[in-house]
Amino acid sequence: MPAGGDHYVDFAVRVRYAETDQMQVAYYANHFVWFELGRTELFRQLGYVYRELEEQEGCYLVVAEASCRYHSPARYDEVLTVRTRVKAARTRVVVFTYEILGPEGKKVATGETVHVITDGKGKPRTLPEKYKQALLAPARAVQASR
Amino acid sequence: MPAGGDHYVDFAVRVRYAETDQMQVAYYANHFVWFELGRTELFRQLGYVYRELEEQEGCYLVVAEASCRYHSPARYDEVLTVRTRVKAARTRVVVFTYEILGPEGKKVATGETVHVITDGKGKPRTLPEKYKQALLAPARAVQASR
Amino acid sequence: MPAGGDHYVDFAVRVRYAETDQMQVAYYANHFVWFELGRTELFRQLGYVYRELEEQEGCYLVVAEASCRYHSPARYDEVLTVRTRVKAARTRVVVFTYEILGPEGKKVATGETVHVITDGKGKPRTLPEKYKQALLAPARAVQASR
Amino acid sequence: MPAGGDHYVDFAVRVRYAETDQMQVAYYANHFVWFELGRTELFRQLGYVYRELEEQEGCYLVVAEASCRYHSPARYDEVLTVRTRVKAARTRVVVFTYEILGPEGKKVATGETVHVITDGKGKPRTLPEKYKQALLAPARAVQASR
Repeated sequence: MPAGGDHYVDFAVRVRYAETDQMQVAYYANHFVWFELGRTELFRQLGYVYRELEEQEGCYLVVAEASCRYHSPARYDEVLTVRTRVKAARTRVVVFTYEILGPEGKKVATGETVHVITDGKGKPRTLPEKYKQALLAPARAVQASR
Repeated sequence: MPAGGDHYVDFAVRVRYAETDQMQVAYYANHFVWFELGRTELFRQLGYVYRELEEQEGCYLVVAEASCRYHSPARYDEVLTVRTRVKAARTRVVVFTYEILGPEGKKVATGETVHVITDGKGKPRTLPEKYKQALLAPARAVQASR
Repeated sequence: MPAGGDHYVDFAVRVRYAETDQMQVAYYANHFVWFELGRTELFRQLGYVYRELEEQEGCYLVVAEASCRYHSPARYDEVLTVRTRVKAARTRVVVFTYEILGPEGKKVATGETVHVITDGKGKPRTLPEKYKQALLAPARAVQASR
Repeated sequence: MPAGGDHYVDFAVRVRYAETDQMQVAYYANHFVWFELGRTELFRQLGYVYRELEEQEGCYLVVAEASCRYHSPARYDEVLTVRTRVKAARTRVVVFTYEILGPEGKKVATGETVHVITDGKGKPRTLPEKYKQALLAPARAVQASR
């Protein structure tokens, strides 16, 4: 996570054989799985574990919208970087943006997911304040958690 | 595919156990897989098989953009209807839109995919005229293929 | 489900683009997903819904062993037949066997899954008698449910 | 890869949200995907890249048989160790065995895959000698590649 105004978290993921399709590139739905790995890692680097948000707080970030723009294909065994940023973190909505970079920085994809906060039964609730603060101030949170 | 100005093709898909996640609903990337089933079926109802477009014409509809808005969860064993429409069919670009409907017509999701036309090596090419015409005039094409 | 001593249930599944890999055949883990569709359909034809077994009885068929022998590749857009049989249905264990047949009856795969019965927390329990009876006497059960 | 007679390669994989199902554990087909990651890593540690075996040698390790025994569930966000061994490496057949270990060494699963060697069109061929030797003598190969 770089210093300064642009906060992001990078996560490396290697393209699996199972993720390729007969066009010999990664199938387009997998990018959304990689986005999920990116935002999980962002939580982890902020000092939180997304699993505990669900298990201990009964708080779920349900996907309300997801989009991806595919710039170049991702191929089997390539190591991709999923770069995740918090675009918005409000009481009821969190928005992440993603860049997926391939070998030598080639741009593979960009995307965005919008999440609403619910309890375990799908009813809207608010995001606990400490998570909201952490998402809003990632650089500070990372320092605090060291 | 109804008569009149609004042409669409419906495809039924049952939610698989493998498609659920621990939130006990279908994981959000699967909706893009279901979109693919919808557009494949649309081709089939137009009298074409997407597989042949690839195998015989060397013509691929590569996804350039994909988006989905999630309205309500899809659950295990539910039968969903994927309703697919052609929004645009040009020489180099085809756009499909989708609605996913759950039991009793509940709206599950809406989405869109933008495709560019390439050859087997990923180089841009044009969509063969007969496919373009079919996509532009689905109702007529269905009649002609009977 | 044929009359006589050999009871099986057939389920048709079309190979999805997402299920292919860069070898241009269905990836080998998908056959286990298709097995699951086969046993779900077997339950349905016996007059039961597997979902209700979980939701209403709190009874889960957890996979303890799974195996598959691959005879020939399954390709994109092919319609496969998943043929499922009950090999054993005891108080604590259920065993299913599967044949996957391709176009023109080509043998694609054969396999077996062994399931133990648990409650919602993973603790062993017994299979409710009516399900056991149904699994043991599929032909009769199908008639009774008509 | 430990010294001595028992040669294996460990690979760490974290359970993805997408890999869970509504029983709140990893769905049973994913273990076969993890097995694939294990054998890919084994090749890598031997100094080879499986992708190059396909691309440069036109040599494919097609799965002929696969089996898994499930000892305990794998849960979301857990880091698993996939421990892969070469059981046999002959001219036409390669056999791998796998152990999947969870946190604190808990045994999650054990399994085996049998592979036949084919060319890009699925016709049987022989495994190039250098790969066979490497698979048979992993410890030596690892030293040689340093």
